[in-house]
Amino acid sequence: MAKPEKHVFVCTQQRPPGHPRGSCGALDSFSLFAALTMELDQRGLFQKVQVTSTGCMGPCHKGPTVLVYPEGVMYAGMKQSDLPTFIEEHLVGGKPVESLLMPQEDWG
Amino acid sequence: MAKPEKHVFVCTQQRPPGHPRGSCGALDSFSLFAALTMELDQRGLFQKVQVTSTGCMGPCHKGPTVLVYPEGVMYAGMKQSDLPTFIEEHLVGGKPVESLLMPQEDWG
Repeated sequence: MAKPEKHVFVCTQQRPPGHPRGSCGALDSFSLFAALTMELDQRGLFQKVQVTSTGCMGPCHKGPTVLVYPEGVMYAGMKQSDLPTFIEEHLVGGKPVESLLMPQEDWG
Repeated sequence: MAKPEKHVFVCTQQRPPGHPRGSCGALDSFSLFAALTMELDQRGLFQKVQVTSTGCMGPCHKGPTVLVYPEGVMYAGMKQSDLPTFIEEHLVGGKPVESLLMPQEDWG
């Protein structure tokens, strides 16, 4: 594919059960990643938006962590039910969803 | 950490031996990721540059794939011996290393 307009990174880091940092993987971010990929496919957005899974991006306690470049906007605790709003408002509309943003002090 | 000036994504996707697509993991991108992290630490660049491992970003046949945001510049076949040039010229100096870039048609 060509360079996308938006590149979404979804943390799927796994840690053992009971690990003090927890992990986005333990918060079912694999399902979030899969659901986002399917939603984008259904909307014909694969030429415009690329989705990539990642290892740890930092704020494990506020996962699942989702990061959008080139703007560098990070989201906290995104749920599958947030995906339509995220896709429509941010990925298509270009306006980050304020209510879902990672607090600035936790970025990364 | 705060939002970094540069965010480097290193593909560490693994596939089984003999898989027709190959993988960046099979090209020892884990060592590249570790070496980049250590080099940045030694140079005191952790406040400025964040490094994150990823799943597949697309051009497996030209890996290891390394991607730098916010500029969205992708590199092909980066080696540990390329790291000093990559860090000095691009991550510190702000000028992508032309000789190491992914061909535009293979981006992603």
